[in-house]
Parts: sequence; C-alpha cells; structure tokens
Amino acid sequence: MTGGGLKRGKPYASVLRREILKSALAERLYEAAAALPVIDYHCHLSPKEIYEDKPFEDIGAMWLSGDHYKWRLMRRAGVSEELITGGAPYADKFRAYAGCVGTAFGNPLRDWSRLELEKYFDCRIPLNADNADGIRRAANAVLAEKALSPRRLMEASAVEYVATTDDPADTLDYHTKLRKDKSFKCKVAPTFRVDSLFNIDRADFAAYIERLSAASGVEINGFADFLSAIGKRMTDFLSAGCRFSDIGTERFPLSAGSYESAEAAFNNAKNGIKSCECEIEGYFGFMYTHWLCKCKEYGFAAQLHLNVLRNTNGKEFLRFGADGGFDTVSDGFSARAFIGVLNRCDAAGGLPRIIVYTLNPAYYEALITAAGSFREVTVGMAWWFNDHQMGIREYLDKMSALSHIGEVIGMLTDSRSFLSYARHDWFRMILADFLSAFGEENEKELTALAEKLSYYNTKKLIEG
Amino acid sequence: MTGGGLKRGKPYASVLRREILKSALAERLYEAAAALPVIDYHCHLSPKEIYEDKPFEDIGAMWLSGDHYKWRLMRRAGVSEELITGGAPYADKFRAYAGCVGTAFGNPLRDWSRLELEKYFDCRIPLNADNADGIRRAANAVLAEKALSPRRLMEASAVEYVATTDDPADTLDYHTKLRKDKSFKCKVAPTFRVDSLFNIDRADFAAYIERLSAASGVEINGFADFLSAIGKRMTDFLSAGCRFSDIGTERFPLSAGSYESAEAAFNNAKNGIKSCECEIEGYFGFMYTHWLCKCKEYGFAAQLHLNVLRNTNGKEFLRFGADGGFDTVSDGFSARAFIGVLNRCDAAGGLPRIIVYTLNPAYYEALITAAGSFREVTVGMAWWFNDHQMGIREYLDKMSALSHIGEVIGMLTDSRSFLSYARHDWFRMILADFLSAFGEENEKELTALAEKLSYYNTKKLIEG
Amino acid sequence: MTGGGLKRGKPYASVLRREILKSALAERLYEAAAALPVIDYHCHLSPKEIYEDKPFEDIGAMWLSGDHYKWRLMRRAGVSEELITGGAPYADKFRAYAGCVGTAFGNPLRDWSRLELEKYFDCRIPLNADNADGIRRAANAVLAEKALSPRRLMEASAVEYVATTDDPADTLDYHTKLRKDKSFKCKVAPTFRVDSLFNIDRADFAAYIERLSAASGVEINGFADFLSAIGKRMTDFLSAGCRFSDIGTERFPLSAGSYESAEAAFNNAKNGIKSCECEIEGYFGFMYTHWLCKCKEYGFAAQLHLNVLRNTNGKEFLRFGADGGFDTVSDGFSARAFIGVLNRCDAAGGLPRIIVYTLNPAYYEALITAAGSFREVTVGMAWWFNDHQMGIREYLDKMSALSHIGEVIGMLTDSRSFLSYARHDWFRMILADFLSAFGEENEKELTALAEKLSYYNTKKLIEG
Repeated sequence: MTGGGLKRGKPYASVLRREILKSALAERLYEAAAALPVIDYHCHLSPKEIYEDKPFEDIGAMWLSGDHYKWRLMRRAGVSEELITGGAPYADKFRAYAGCVGTAFGNPLRDWSRLELEKYFDCRIPLNADNADGIRRAANAVLAEKALSPRRLMEASAVEYVATTDDPADTLDYHTKLRKDKSFKCKVAPTFRVDSLFNIDRADFAAYIERLSAASGVEINGFADFLSAIGKRMTDFLSAGCRFSDIGTERFPLSAGSYESAEAAFNNAKNGIKSCECEIEGYFGFMYTHWLCKCKEYGFAAQLHLNVLRNTNGKEFLRFGADGGFDTVSDGFSARAFIGVLNRCDAAGGLPRIIVYTLNPAYYEALITAAGSFREVTVGMAWWFNDHQMGIREYLDKMSALSHIGEVIGMLTDSRSFLSYARHDWFRMILADFLSAFGEENEKELTALAEKLSYYNTKKLIEG
Repeated sequence: MTGGGLKRGKPYASVLRREILKSALAERLYEAAAALPVIDYHCHLSPKEIYEDKPFEDIGAMWLSGDHYKWRLMRRAGVSEELITGGAPYADKFRAYAGCVGTAFGNPLRDWSRLELEKYFDCRIPLNADNADGIRRAANAVLAEKALSPRRLMEASAVEYVATTDDPADTLDYHTKLRKDKSFKCKVAPTFRVDSLFNIDRADFAAYIERLSAASGVEINGFADFLSAIGKRMTDFLSAGCRFSDIGTERFPLSAGSYESAEAAFNNAKNGIKSCECEIEGYFGFMYTHWLCKCKEYGFAAQLHLNVLRNTNGKEFLRFGADGGFDTVSDGFSARAFIGVLNRCDAAGGLPRIIVYTLNPAYYEALITAAGSFREVTVGMAWWFNDHQMGIREYLDKMSALSHIGEVIGMLTDSRSFLSYARHDWFRMILADFLSAFGEENEKELTALAEKLSYYNTKKLIEG
Repeated sequence: MTGGGLKRGKPYASVLRREILKSALAERLYEAAAALPVIDYHCHLSPKEIYEDKPFEDIGAMWLSGDHYKWRLMRRAGVSEELITGGAPYADKFRAYAGCVGTAFGNPLRDWSRLELEKYFDCRIPLNADNADGIRRAANAVLAEKALSPRRLMEASAVEYVATTDDPADTLDYHTKLRKDKSFKCKVAPTFRVDSLFNIDRADFAAYIERLSAASGVEINGFADFLSAIGKRMTDFLSAGCRFSDIGTERFPLSAGSYESAEAAFNNAKNGIKSCECEIEGYFGFMYTHWLCKCKEYGFAAQLHLNVLRNTNGKEFLRFGADGGFDTVSDGFSARAFIGVLNRCDAAGGLPRIIVYTLNPAYYEALITAAGSFREVTVGMAWWFNDHQMGIREYLDKMSALSHIGEVIGMLTDSRSFLSYARHDWFRMILADFLSAFGEENEKELTALAEKLSYYNTKKLIEG
C-alpha cells in the first residue's frame, strides 16, 4: 500500500480474491477494473473531517465508534451493549468485534474487515478473538507510521471524486474550504439530501425552518417562502459543485397532492399543529413532484432510497436516537405509486436523471421494469442490507435479465468510514467474476463492461 | 435447416448450446426433447399473415417493426427513438439493435437473436454493430433464396399446432380460411381473449358492444344480451377449434360481484357514464366467475395472466398507444382474492382447467401453493419479463419443490414473430440441463420428463 | 441401523449423501454433526402414541394415513382421491405414492422417502411403482422383526428431547404418564399452542371455553376469568416441562387492542354473537401482546408461524375438515405490524425469546432485519413449503448475509411421523455442504458451527 496519486498499488492477492475470482478470465477482468480510480457518488463522510485531516490513532475507534452495521452484527452474536455502544475501552470492543466477525461467514462485514486489514494495514491474518489485541496493536502502529488521515486514505484508495450527504440547511462551510484548498486533488462535492424538508410530522420541524431560513437568507413566513428558500439553497449547492439530490424517507406518496394541501400541512407544522394522515400524504404528494422538477431544473440526479423503516426498536430509539443499528427492510412498495410520481413529474416539467434503490429485494422485478419504461430512470446498486456478495450478484443478474447490463451505474460505499473504499475493490472482484461467466470469446466486450461499471458510467453521471 | 414435414433438422451445435448443456446427460436429454414437434398454445401471431403467407424480405423489418421487447432493450442502451420506432431505415435500425444486443449479456434477447440467426439463417457469427450490415445482407439473401414465409418458417420449426389470440368480436374469417386450406398441415386455432369484455372503464366500450353485436348477430340492449352474445361467440370459437380462453387485465377481483352490480356497471358503460371504483369492482367480481364457469361449460382451458401494469409511461402512451414497450411488473397480488375466485367458480359450476401466470416472480410460492389446492389449476411457464434462463430455472425449481415437476405444461412463445420458435429449442436446452442435475441413474425417468414437458403434456392439454 | 442409546449407527452412504455433500470438507463437517443427538423442539407427534408405544405394522399406513404433504403431491400427480384419502387398501395407496414420488425430482418428499427407507428399513433401492409391492413387504418385515414402535424409532434416531404441540385445554395426561415412566430416556415436553384461544370467530369457541374451564378448574364467566384460566394452564404446562408456546393463526394484528375491545369480542363469542372485523382485530391486538408478555413471565420461548392461509379449498374443507393438504402460502405480511407487536410487548413487560417463521420466503429480508433489531427475536428454519434443499439453503444464505450464521437455532421436523427424524440427518448434510463453501482454512470454526446449528444452539434454547 503506497499513498499518493491516483495510481493504486498492486491488486490484492488475498484469500478473498481467490475465493471470488474463479477463473483466469475473471482475474483479467478484475485487473482491468482495479486499475481505475474510484468515484464514490454517495457516502456519508464528513467534509469537516476531510478538511481537518487529523491522522487516525486507533483502528478500534475507526471501526466501532459509529458503524451501526458492526454494532448490529455484534448484537446478533450476543455481545453485551457495554462492548458495543457502551463505555468499554476500544481495546475490549475491538476484541469483541473480532470474536464475532471471524465466524460471520456469508456476512459482508467479514469480507470488508478482511479487505480493510489487508488493503490499509497489510495484514492478511484472519482476525479472531485470540489475535485481536496483536492485530490492533500492529494496525495502530501502521496508522502512526504512515500518519494515515482522511486524505491519505482517500489518496491511497485512488479516490477521484466524493459526494457527501448534506442537509439543505447546512452552511457548506467545509465544502467551501475544501474547494479553496488546492493541495488536495480529490473533488469533494455536496449532495442535497432533502429528508428534513419532508419530515413535517417531526416535533422539530418549526425549528428546522428557522435553520433553513438562516442558511438561505430567505425569511420564511409561508409555504411560498419555504419553496423559495429551497430554491436558494439548491443554487448554493450547485455553486458548491453539487450534482446529486437524495431522499430516504419511510413514506412514498400514493397520489398527487395539491399546492394547497401541501401549504396547509406546512402551515400546521410551522405552527406546531399536528397534521392528519391525509394532510401529510398531500404534502408528500406535492413535494415529491416539486422536488423532482427542481432537480431537473438544476441538473441534479435524484437518488431515491425506498423501502426502509427507521428506528424500529422503540426502547433503543429513546436511548440512542437515530443511526443506532435499528433500521429495517420495509414492505408495501407500490409500482403504481412509483409510476404515478414519475408521470406527474414528466408531465409537469420532464424527469431529471433518477437513480432508485430498494432496500427490499423482493421488489427488484417491479422496480427494474417500472424504471425501464422511463429513459431517465435506472435502478441503483444493491443497497445496505443487500450489499453482500449474493445481493450484488442478484442485482447484476436482474439488471442483466430485465434491462441492459451496460446501464448499471456502479458501486458506492454509502459509508461513514474512510476505510470503506475497500468495498470498491470488492465490488470489482464480484463484477469481474459475474462477467467472466459470459465466456472468453467475449473478453473484449466484457473488459469494456468491467471498466464502464467500475468507473466510466459513474464518471459520465457526475459530468452530466 | 430444411423446411417441410414435422421432422426438424440437426439439433444446434452452437455456442449457446455448449453454454447451456453442461453434461453428456444434458445433451442426451436435449436430443430426446429436440426431436419432438412444437405445440405453441399461446402466441400473438396473425392468422391473416399465416393465411396470406407472404415471403419475408428483410430481417430488419422482421425483428424491429413490432417487437417491443427489442425496442425496450434499445431504449435501455440509450438508442434514439428515431432508430427504434421512428422513421429511420431498417438498415440503420438493425445496426443499432446489433450494437446493443451483442453486449446484452444475461438478457434473453441475446440468446434468442443468436438462436434465430443460426436456426433460420445458418449464421453463427456473434452479431455486433460492425458486422450488422453484412449479416443483414446475408440473412436477407437466405430469405429470398428459401422464399421464407410464415408457413415455411412454421414448417421448418416443426410446428404442429398454434393457438393465436383473438378478440370475441373477431370474425375469425382467416381462421375459417385456414381450416379450409388442406395444403397447410399445421393446425391454427383461435383463443377467446376476453380483456375487451372486462374493460368497461374504456371510452370505446360502447363502440365495442356494437362490434360484438355485429359479430355475434345478437342485438345487445342490456346486460343479459351481452352475456348471450358472449355465449354465442364462444360457440363460434369452439366451432373454429378453440381450446383456450385468456385474460390479461390489470385488475383482479377482490370479492364476489352480484349480477345486479355488474348489470349496473354495464349499463353505465353502454350509455357512456363513468362507473365508480366500486361498480367496476362489482363488474369484475361477477364477470370473472361467470367467465370461468363458461370456460368449464365450453371445455376451454382458461389462461390467467396476472400482475401486469400496462402503458405505464403516460407521455409515450399518448404517442404510441398500447404495445410500445411500456408495460411493467405489478405488485398487490392477493392469494386470498385468487383463492376466492376459484372457490366461487368451483361452487357455482366447477372449475375449468386453469393455467395461471404471474409477471411478478415474488408471488410464485403463494401462487403455486394456492393452485396446488385445486386439481384443475396449475401455474404456467415463466412469463414475459421472467422468460430468461434464470427465470425459467427459477420456475422449474419452484414447481419441482412446491408441486410435482411432471405437471409443468411446457413452453409457449407468447410472440408476434414467426422466428420465435427458436425459443422452444432454447427452453428444451434449459430444461434438459435442469433435469440432468438429478443424475444418470434416473436417465429413463428424466428422458420421459424432458419429452412430457416439451411436447406430450401440451398435446394432452389441447386434446382435452 | 441399531436402536438403543444416543449413539447413532454409521452415517449414511447413500446416493442422496453423495448428491448433497460435494467435498471432503463437507463430508467431515457432516460426520461431526451426524454424531450428535437430536432435539426436536417443534413437532406434532402424539404423546399418547409415544406412551402406548404400539409397534407399527405397515409402512403404507405409517406414510399415508395422515401425511397431507404426501396427499398433496399425489393430487398434483393426478392420483385419484380414492387412492389418497379414500377407502383403497394401503397396498394400493403405497403403490400409487411410489409411482409419483419416484419422479418428484426436486421435491423434498423424494429425499425424505429415500432417507427413511434407508435409515429405518435398510433399503437403498429407488422406490417406484414397479417395485413398490416388494419394498413394502420388505419394509413391513423389518417393522415386525425389529418390533419398531414409536419409542424404538426415537431411540434409533438418537432423539434426546421432543416438544409436542398441545392445546391449552389438553389434560396433559399422557405427558404426565410419560414423565413417570423412567424406562424411556427421551424427554417429551408439551408446547402451549394458543390458536384455540385466538379463534373467537369459530362457531365452537363457546364450547372451547367450557373445555378450557374444565381443564383449568377455573369457572369462566368473563374475560378476566378466561385470562386466569390461561395463566393456570401455563402453570400446569410449565410443571409438565413446557419450554415453548406457539401460534399459527392466519391473522396477525395490525394494531394494539384495548382490554375493553378484547373483552367485548370475547363476550360476543361466549354468547354466540358474531363479532365484526374491527372487534376481532381488537381482540387479536390485545391478546397477542398479552400472550407474549405471559410467555416472558413463564420463560416460554414463543414460536410465531406467520403467513399461512388454511383450508383454502372450500369444497374439500367441507369434506375433510382441517389438515387435508389444502393450506397455502399467504401474502400481506407487514413489517410495521410485526415491529408494532414487538414494541408493545417490550414496553409492557419485556420480550420473551421469540422464534418467528414465515411460510412466504419473499418476506425473509423484511423479517430477518426486523428481528435483527430486537435481541430476543430470531427467524426460525425454512418452514413447511420451504423445507426443501433450495429453501434451506436460501434460509441459511439470508441468515448469514443479513444476520450472523451462528444465531441459527437449528432443525425441527414439524411432523406427525416417527420416521421424520431422517430430516435431521438431511438438514445436517445440507448444512455441512453449505458451510463447506467457506473453505478448509476455517475448518475448526466451521465444525463448531455445524455442531452448534445441529445440536448445541437448540440445547441452549431448551435449557433456557
């Protein structure tokens, strides 16, 4: 592993690579894909951390301070909460995690942890409870020796572009600072994440309007002002290099909503009055179309994250708040409702580029064929709980069979960790093995596909 | 490829065959299946084209003038509409299609196009944008040289029986002419496709009643007359050799409907009055049971095509009308509703033979087990968007695990093209490979199954 | 096959074993698993039959007198009802079954029948219609020679613990007798199966209350008495060694229900008045939470069997009653409703250990992630229609990818037959082959997992 520049080091020769790449053709396809830089067009990295660029000191904290994927696995393995989100020292937490990830066969965390240890810490020993202390010490020594910081890790991972996830009320200060810092070659752009604009049933929505007003400089006295403030912030985001907008609400509108119904619900929320189910639905109906039309206007690609239920454990939500590892796969997707939103937006002003993800893989067929009726819409990579080898293969299989494999945009990390770029390597291995099944006689076309789906399709997307 | 008679030529020795058939046993099972004629019990071929039997001149027009599967693939690959459904010459359209089907790995169109080129045009070169012009010229030379016409292609494909899809208001003139023409050995029978009878929410329903009245010779003044006219046409269809009835509406009834509610909705539609949701549901509830009971009376096997949404792109529907490549997989199937229809029909007069298809494969388990509770009902072959190698294997896997593999009726093309018979060969390859997994020690039984599922089960079905 | 003791004989060397175990590692993992005793924590065996221990005389009756799995397969293969549930002699029924199971490739009955013939009757000849008479005679000779009875079969299968399924109104007399009989080493415990307590819409509910009153010694004049009687029976079941409660109703509550609404519905049912949909829903909402809280109080693990529709063929239900082979997979699962029940119970008194099964595999992702947000909840083994090789692999795959493979509790038979223990061997083969994919370098960890999922996790469960 050598940092600096966009050239990555030697591709992995690890156990995992041997497991995934099952033929010489797969190896060659992976080599072609692995040589390309990384574009991570949806993640939850902190622009502040990238800007400040403080070196990391402890792999235990890097892995376990905020990663609710890992917390969840530890809970399923019966680890006590003290060793997960409690006050135990990271040495103990790391040992506890090592004790359950080593036997988590089939879980993507086992793959990812092995890859991260090898890619960034040159460690190829299978992690377990017995060797956890030694591995942690060795990894921490690498951190210190190489002064591994956010930027060093991004450079070492050949990251060319990152789109973070940012609230409409965010000042974008760190994005501005990063843009002015010419020493860092990787482009960091914000994403206009609109959930806060939709959550009018939250107690803090009135306070949120204040924040949005401050950030936009628009005095928000009514719904029209609210929409103006949103437009103002989209202009600001565009100036900051934004190319994407994003939504991940539980609710998806079942019908059109009028401006008037949305205005009524907005006024309720602003005045601390609870709207009824029907008013909230009207608000969603109107705002969804409005938002997509604005994305079209600003040239933002809209990312829709569907079929999620959040904070499902009531007791734990009271204790932790959000992002504690208690979100789950939802059902109730309606192809008719999804198509309704697309047609209303298409009729109103034309569709923006749309990438739609489903957390529930049972809806792939409905979603891929619905997207397939609209040129601007495509189904994105296996998301979150589906982001395991089997899930990625299922996604690639279904996109191939129901659409055209060449339209797949490619991998993203969706991660809060600077070590997660290893997942791009992992995806390229899975992709290479998937493609290799189509035979040596098509090697030229398959190589081109491996490169498109690893890099060029995403590059085209961010270049508009 | 030699035309004439029911004996087919040498089975394929193509790349695809080597890809699909993975063992010597699979090869032998395929040889047994490939030697049998084809019965295509559900397709959309035109009886007029079969009767007139005009030789084809251009593979470009054959492939691209009406096949919305191909249009859809081209759209997903980013081809401009001018080259899909626009005014561009077929040479350009063919080249554009070649440019995207060659890299459509995993999509059934890639398999089908390769098979058709080999089976009918003796061409085994992988089609791509570079060789498209040459391949088209060579294929067109074969068309001219062999004077390939609808009947020549059906003979060359060893087609023994075809069931077309016909509206209740259809005169069946070409079916009558075909029956009188003793020179053509393949039996062509109509199917009583009832969607028009159910679509009372369409603006042209009143006009349709006029057509039905004319075709049946029954003056339709009220709902009872309408039902009489339907009965009259079923008698006509039966005389024309009809063995099947078919439905493919978006809606499926959630409850029984009374004669009175159906009559009210019918009278509305006849008088140009829009029925409410509840009246339409009542109409469907009554008519579904009525229709199935009539199928039982006439000895028609009823084919139910469930879980489809049609013409989902509003803008394109205004431009193209139906069958433009904008239909999608639906959700919302209710096992309880499905079982309700079966029980109501069973109580009313007994069930006809029913073959039910789902466009959404997420419902296979619910559907196969629901069908499994009624001797007269079976789940049909992987339909439309599921008609890819993976989808056919999924269907066979689930029928085997949840029912008895021996009840699978077999393949159909569901196609508008006379070249689509290659799909029967393709199915037989996939079936042979699927069966071969059960081992050489069962070769006798597996061979019998390969033959049953390729031919004899369908033959039994059409012979009642 | 030698009876007696917990050591089982030589592991199978059958065709099926060679089919399933695809590597030397898989063989070794299976040997480790196969050496362990069997704990069958959910079945429908009769404690009376175990107590009386009458030797069996006819494999035809053993297989075909009550097994609706087999009846269903025979119906799908077109066998007449006379030979299934009619008056035909078992010789004829056995021959008819042999004629269809031999070609039921991919159906678990084919695997199970082969395994049972080999394990208990030392017969490795593939069963078919031609050899059915001979095989039946030979098997019956083995029954006579070895005096195979319920207990002999359980001993021969190394069964250590069995949980039967018992109604709250059951006297548990045979459980009491079995506990006093020290000659039989296998522990037989009851399960508190609560469906009867929930089925207030049944005509015989008032009569059921009488039975419950008699069994509990509690005079039931109102709802409070009913709940007392339930508590009294749970105490009785606990004394009888009960560790589990179980539910398998069609309905699952979508919302909380108040005590008052439940009381109203109960009083209606007691007085023969039909409750409306809304009152029944209120009853379910209240009772579900109440029941789970009581399970917590008594230390019972609650088994939830979801997504089933029962007795779906109206005509056949009139003829047969329940358990005739006419149940099917249901849809309509709501993750939100499921999570609602868990949170209400958690808030009320804390969750018991919960094992939840789905008959519809389309809900695995939603269910595994929902369970994954609650430490006390886990998703149980592929149930009923999913209990085939492909279904078990799917379950293991999804538990691995979405949770931690180590939490899988293990196999159960869910069976009415003393021959069904062969399914534990079969599961261990499938599990061993599944685990072997993770490589020889992890043999130590994989062996431990094979043993945990075959025995130790279940042992921990029954020991609390």
